Amino acid sequence: MVNSKPPYYAVIFTSLRNEQVNDGYEAMADEMVALAKAQPGFIAVDSARNGIGITVSYWESLEAIQQWKLHTDHLLAQQLGKEKWYLHYSVRICKVEREYEFGG
Amino acid sequence: MVNSKPPYYAVIFTSLRNEQVNDGYEAMADEMVALAKAQPGFIAVDSARNGIGITVSYWESLEAIQQWKLHTDHLLAQQLGKEKWYLHYSVRICKVEREYEFGG
Repeated sequence: MVNSKPPYYAVIFTSLRNEQVNDGYEAMADEMVALAKAQPGFIAVDSARNGIGITVSYWESLEAIQQWKLHTDHLLAQQLGKEKWYLHYSVRICKVEREYEFGG
Repeated sequence: MVNSKPPYYAVIFTSLRNEQVNDGYEAMADEMVALAKAQPGFIAVDSARNGIGITVSYWESLEAIQQWKLHTDHLLAQQLGKEKWYLHYSVRICKVEREYEFGG
């Protein structure tokens, strides 16, 4: 999924959701991914949820991450998230130093 | 979940499973988590799976990660994983440079 060679950057977003349905979360999450993909320096994103949710996005530079973070709609979504969607979340900005893979 | 201050380290393990049941995967995965928790330098682990699986373990140092990796049972599980459990996996060793949180 990621074709860049280290070093590059990862944003690890770990969250615990409110248990609400039809609250617009899925649409917001889809929009956030679309926004990330449209940003310069975006590489890839992986996401999984059962109980907690983990979304890891990969970026060419810290500057690309900052630009994404500054994006108005992204900031808006973070604000709404604090109010409604999440019981808890954490964001970690990481430098990917090494990687290895198995399989195609 | 993580009480350490950056910098510390993260291992991002992303995997695509074979669709087999009762193949011993869950027991192996539980054992790997137990082994990690028993290692010096272990901080925490988060895991989620739907479609792809993402497991992120957090460590105090690269040396702690290397010791964990060298652990016999862990290596064994990786080998078995190549043969049976995974269609694809990737491992990324990362330095956590910054973090922020919302919620308790």
